Amino acid sequence: MQETNRTEISTLGEFGLIKHLTKDIQLKNESTRYGVGDDCAVLEYPESKQILVTNDLLMEGIHFDLTYVPLKHLGYKSAMVNLSDIYAMNGTPRQMVVSIALGRRFCVEDMEDFYAGLKMACDAHGVDIVGGDTTSSLTGLAISITCIGEADKEKVVYRNGAKENDLICVSGDLGAAYMGLQLLEREKAVFDQQIREARKTGNKKLEEELRQAQPDFSGREYLLERQLKPEARRDIIQALDEAHIRPTSMIDISDGLSSELLHICTQSKVGCRIYEERIPLDYQTAVMAEELDMNVTTCALNGGEDYELLFTVPLGLHEEVCQIKDIKVIGHITKADLGCALISRDGNEFELKAQGWNPLKD
Amino acid sequence: MQETNRTEISTLGEFGLIKHLTKDIQLKNESTRYGVGDDCAVLEYPESKQILVTNDLLMEGIHFDLTYVPLKHLGYKSAMVNLSDIYAMNGTPRQMVVSIALGRRFCVEDMEDFYAGLKMACDAHGVDIVGGDTTSSLTGLAISITCIGEADKEKVVYRNGAKENDLICVSGDLGAAYMGLQLLEREKAVFDQQIREARKTGNKKLEEELRQAQPDFSGREYLLERQLKPEARRDIIQALDEAHIRPTSMIDISDGLSSELLHICTQSKVGCRIYEERIPLDYQTAVMAEELDMNVTTCALNGGEDYELLFTVPLGLHEEVCQIKDIKVIGHITKADLGCALISRDGNEFELKAQGWNPLKD
Repeated sequence: MQETNRTEISTLGEFGLIKHLTKDIQLKNESTRYGVGDDCAVLEYPESKQILVTNDLLMEGIHFDLTYVPLKHLGYKSAMVNLSDIYAMNGTPRQMVVSIALGRRFCVEDMEDFYAGLKMACDAHGVDIVGGDTTSSLTGLAISITCIGEADKEKVVYRNGAKENDLICVSGDLGAAYMGLQLLEREKAVFDQQIREARKTGNKKLEEELRQAQPDFSGREYLLERQLKPEARRDIIQALDEAHIRPTSMIDISDGLSSELLHICTQSKVGCRIYEERIPLDYQTAVMAEELDMNVTTCALNGGEDYELLFTVPLGLHEEVCQIKDIKVIGHITKADLGCALISRDGNEFELKAQGWNPLKD
Repeated sequence: MQETNRTEISTLGEFGLIKHLTKDIQLKNESTRYGVGDDCAVLEYPESKQILVTNDLLMEGIHFDLTYVPLKHLGYKSAMVNLSDIYAMNGTPRQMVVSIALGRRFCVEDMEDFYAGLKMACDAHGVDIVGGDTTSSLTGLAISITCIGEADKEKVVYRNGAKENDLICVSGDLGAAYMGLQLLEREKAVFDQQIREARKTGNKKLEEELRQAQPDFSGREYLLERQLKPEARRDIIQALDEAHIRPTSMIDISDGLSSELLHICTQSKVGCRIYEERIPLDYQTAVMAEELDMNVTTCALNGGEDYELLFTVPLGLHEEVCQIKDIKVIGHITKADLGCALISRDGNEFELKAQGWNPLKD
C-alpha cells in the first residue's frame, strides 16, 4: 500500500469510487450491451453459444498476503484465476463483474493499482469489466470476481467426459507457484525476525534499512512470476482448437494435479495411471524443492495455483497432441476399478490422494 | 449460530461442503444446462433475450449483524437483494452463483441454515443455484451472490430513460426496513447493557435468563419483517407487464429513495419534483419514527433496504398505473435545470440529497 499521495476513499464515496475506477473502460465485445452503471450489466449472446459463468471469492490472509503481494499483481491474478475457469470449459471469456470490500487502510491509489492489474489482464484476454459492487469491510480485503464467457454448444468440455484409454495431458509445468509461495513466506519470516531484533536493540537506522531492503530473488524469478503473475492458458485452448482437438474432459489446476485429476476421474467414473517421470517440472522448481528439503513430485502433485490445464484426449490423437508446444502426456485413463495411481520412477504404484490446498481443512 | 448438534466444516472440506449443501438442488429452468460441479455453470438463452448479470458482496459487520440476524434469514435476504436488481431491469431472474467465505466459528449446521433461506428465496422466484465457491475467512462471514436473469430485448428498462413530465412511481412503502434496523439495534444495546450489569454483580442466573429472553416486538412485526425478510417485487414487474406498461426508467430502492431518484435523474439528465405527502409510509414506521424522535420523511428518503421499485412512466399512463395495487405516484420528472426537489407538506421546496447509506463514507 502506498503511503505517499494518499486520497481517502471517503472523499469519493462508493459510487464516486466505482465511477473513478471504471471511467476509462472501453467495451470491446459485441455481446456486451451495457456495462457499469445500472442495476445489472446487459449481455446478448447468439443462440449458437452456450454461456459460461464462474465466480471466485478471494479473502485477504487466506488467498493472498499483502505484505508481499503488490495490489497491481493481486488485481492481475484475481482476473487470471477466473479466466482460467472459462478456458477450462474450452470457452472464451467475455465479461467480468468485480466486487470489492475494503477496510479503511486502503486508499483510492491502492484501488487504482488493483484496477490497473485487473484491466491489464482483461485487456490481454479481450474481456470487458461490466459491473460490480464496492463496499467496505471491517477487516481485510475481499474480492469477488464473476467471469462470463461463451463456447460453441458442441465444444463445451466438462470434467465428466474422460473415457478408458484416453491420454492424460497437462500444459506447462507444475509446482512452481507453490515454490514461489514458499520462497516469499520464507523471506517474510526472515524479514520479520530481523525487524524484531532491530527493534529489540533499538536500532532505528537498521530497522529503516531493513524496511527499504529488497530480498535477492535472482535465479528464482520464474517461481515468483508463477506465484505473483500466473497466466491463464488461452494459448493452449487456441492451439487445441487449431489442431481440431476437443478434449474429452478438462479442468484447470488450481488445487494441485492430484486433486484435479481425482475430480475428473470421480466425475467421469474412471481410474487413471500417471507417471512420475513425465510430470513436467521447471529447473527452478526442482532446485528450490531440494533447498527446502521437499519432494518435488509432492509439490507438483499437491502444490496448487499453477493455473495450467489438465485434460484428456482419445488415444488416437497421441501424435497430434504431442505436436502442440507446451503440452505433455503424463498418463492414461483406466477402468474405474483400477483406482487412481501414480507410478513412481522405480515402478511402484501409489494411490493418488487429494492432499491439495483445502481452505476449509483444519 | 447453533451450539447443539455441531458438525465441524473441516470434517467435510470445501468440496464436501458444497456437495452437501447443493445435493438436493433440482434445476428448474430450461436455460440452465449445467449447474454446480464443474469449473463453470453452463447456460443457454434464446437469441430473443438479453441476459442480465448482477453481483452483491455482503460483509459481516457492515451489511449484517449475526447477533440478531438468524442465518436462515440472512440466506433469504442475500438472495432477495440480488433478485431485486434483476427485477429493477424489468427482467426475470433465472440463475444464482453463491460464494461464501466463513471463519471457524461456523459449523455445517450454520451453512445448512443459510442455504435453507437461500433455497427458499430461489424456489419462490424460480431461480436455480448453479454454482459457487466456498472458502474460509480469517474473520467474519463474506457472501458474494451473482444473479443472472433474462428479459426480452425490447423490454429491458435502464436508469437513463426518464423523460420530462413522466410520472415518478414507487411500490410498497418506505422507511420500514430502516426502522426495523433501529429497533434491533436498540434492543441489542439494551441487552448488552443488561448482560454487562448481570456480570458485574456476578448474577449467573440472571445472565442466563437474559440470554434466553426474547425481546417483545409485538406491534412492530412489520418493521422486523421488512428488515429481516424483505421481498423482491416480482409482483410489480408482473402487474406492469400485464397492464402493458413498460417504465421509461427503473431502479430498486436499496440505498434510500433520494439516492436512487438522483441516480435516475443524473443518468436520464432530468430533474424531478416529489411530494412529501405522497411518499408511502406504513403506520408502524410512523409510530416508530415518532418514538425515536426521528423525522419519518427523512427515514423514508434515506433509510435504505426497502427493496421497493422506483420507476417512471409517461404521463399518459396515469390512470393505468394508478389502478395497479401497491403502486403510488409520488411526483414527476422535470427539465434538468429545475433540479431535484422535495415539496414539503407546507409547500416548501427542498433540494434532494443522497444522504442514503454509504458504506464507504466516514
